[in-house]
Amino acid sequence: MVVGFTKETIGTALNLVKAVVPARPTNPLYAYIYLEGTGDDLVVRAASAEVDAEVRIPAPGLEFSPLLVPPAFIRAVEAASGPKVHLAAEEGRIVVSSGTWEAAVNTAESEGFPTWPDKEGGTKATIGVKELLRALGAVRYAASKDAWRSVFRGIVLEFVEGGLRAVASDGYRMAIYDTGIAVPLAGQILLPVSGADEAVRLLKEARGEATLTLHGSFITLTANTGEFEASLVVRLLEGEYPDYRRVIPTEFPTTVVLHAEELAAAVRRVSALSSPKDHRVDIIFDGESRLATLFTEGDYGRSADAVRAGVDGLTLRQAYDYRYLLDAIEPVEGEVVLHISGPATPTLIEPADGGGYKAVVVPLRV
Amino acid sequence: MVVGFTKETIGTALNLVKAVVPARPTNPLYAYIYLEGTGDDLVVRAASAEVDAEVRIPAPGLEFSPLLVPPAFIRAVEAASGPKVHLAAEEGRIVVSSGTWEAAVNTAESEGFPTWPDKEGGTKATIGVKELLRALGAVRYAASKDAWRSVFRGIVLEFVEGGLRAVASDGYRMAIYDTGIAVPLAGQILLPVSGADEAVRLLKEARGEATLTLHGSFITLTANTGEFEASLVVRLLEGEYPDYRRVIPTEFPTTVVLHAEELAAAVRRVSALSSPKDHRVDIIFDGESRLATLFTEGDYGRSADAVRAGVDGLTLRQAYDYRYLLDAIEPVEGEVVLHISGPATPTLIEPADGGGYKAVVVPLRV
Repeated sequence: MVVGFTKETIGTALNLVKAVVPARPTNPLYAYIYLEGTGDDLVVRAASAEVDAEVRIPAPGLEFSPLLVPPAFIRAVEAASGPKVHLAAEEGRIVVSSGTWEAAVNTAESEGFPTWPDKEGGTKATIGVKELLRALGAVRYAASKDAWRSVFRGIVLEFVEGGLRAVASDGYRMAIYDTGIAVPLAGQILLPVSGADEAVRLLKEARGEATLTLHGSFITLTANTGEFEASLVVRLLEGEYPDYRRVIPTEFPTTVVLHAEELAAAVRRVSALSSPKDHRVDIIFDGESRLATLFTEGDYGRSADAVRAGVDGLTLRQAYDYRYLLDAIEPVEGEVVLHISGPATPTLIEPADGGGYKAVVVPLRV
Repeated sequence: MVVGFTKETIGTALNLVKAVVPARPTNPLYAYIYLEGTGDDLVVRAASAEVDAEVRIPAPGLEFSPLLVPPAFIRAVEAASGPKVHLAAEEGRIVVSSGTWEAAVNTAESEGFPTWPDKEGGTKATIGVKELLRALGAVRYAASKDAWRSVFRGIVLEFVEGGLRAVASDGYRMAIYDTGIAVPLAGQILLPVSGADEAVRLLKEARGEATLTLHGSFITLTANTGEFEASLVVRLLEGEYPDYRRVIPTEFPTTVVLHAEELAAAVRRVSALSSPKDHRVDIIFDGESRLATLFTEGDYGRSADAVRAGVDGLTLRQAYDYRYLLDAIEPVEGEVVLHISGPATPTLIEPADGGGYKAVVVPLRV
């Protein structure tokens, strides 16, 4: 039986799955794509050490046993020119066609390919796709790529009283996002960043509610795009995440309100001449002139600029790694508040109008 | 004296110069940018082993002796936010400012930096910017990145009776572009691809006529953008370029006319399943059905498609490296003609409506 798909739907679905295929698979089976025609859906899966992805695209009548195809299958479907792509399983091959074009992709047995967890198991919670996307997107930057503590290469999802919270840190800065949405779960889980990135990719295509299911050592995330259902299995990181609450300062001799985009633009301008060694930018927050004066000095010269700033409290001179400051400000629209605890203790950054996002940046020594 | 520039003009000019700065300079001075205020112009230069670039931006009154600045100078100017950027030379520093922002860039002595050739020397020819751009752009792809014969890493400019011609080849395929414009020069010169790429970058910003000056072991190319003058010094490659004319076949049992974009799209579709070893696509040109039937077969499966083709002559089966075929067709708009000399001898490809472009592709063995 030949079943037709719109190119856009199958293209979007395969794109989600493709992103999971590892460049250098630790398990040779991870180099393949899993396909199955259930009679109702075309099921497509990819697997890696950290995250597996599945899409289920409605395909009434398409029925064939699980099999594996090389990623060339995805390239073949992407190459289709027409608005419709047809698919059939024939004599050990998957035949893709569109107009005059036809591709017959060789298949392999699916034995040994990671199976999908039972839909009935685990503890379930639902949360709006947009809120979960915002939470992961807002904190992602603060996770480390190469921290010596592997927990810093993960993103915390915490089920606290005030609602679902996301946290990421690399030990020098931290980002927190409170969704304010209560979910019937407790404790915290630690997603590897690869899993969080794949979740972001999935959620960007989805709408409505996402279902999060906890299974002990892994979670599943399922959402619907309107055209198909997409799910992930994300294996959780182990290890004790440090008590990040201790890092959040509570006393601030100085609080500064600035326009986020103005501050970011000034940081970018002066940073062109900052030292490539420590990426340092110095800022004097002065209540009298109501200015934040930024300056950098490196081997190549020096640069200075000033932006309007509402300074409440002591005039302070702070130094930051400008990249950390830019990352922290980036998710903020409109006015940003810098709660400054001093030149040697963390600065707390948040949008003036709240909204659930908080960043903590450790200053450089002046 | 402080002189103002529009951000766009100085940005475009510095972009041209910046592209020349080598990532790993063989001469430490090549890591710097040369600046000079002549009283009439701001002169900015960068140098590398293969190509030097200069821009002269009108700046009446800006007068300072030649000096060197680090490339951070360019980053600083790019960081300017306002529509105007101001420049001044002060106490051994170049001061760039815009609005509240100011950057003072450290300078070094210009001694030892490559000098610019005398404007009076050499043999000159002028040619339309657009025609020279088209010639270099049309043949660039065929030059080799890593040929064992270094001449294949160059682009030939040949001053023949019919006019200026550009040629590039990697030994397996060749591209030729005849401008049809006579220039008062003779013989051929061999530009390194880095120089040709820089020339393309310059010509894209320029208008009117470009001046080409031959100086023996190097050429200069000068053109004007309307806002500033830009020039290159390109050191020519040495070595004997093979007699490429011998490779162009002259007898063709079969000539095929196809729609270039249709053929390219079909090649892209079937190539998804071609062998990653030889990138082979087979094509049967059949005069009876008036079809070109394309197919590929590799470890992952096989793929086939067909496109309309006006076939004049014998039905032939040819095999090509699909990447070479795509490159050769890409510069052609509308109908493309394949002059096929046989399965083991080169195929000549040109636009049906002429236009100066020709490609030669050596087929794979069937």
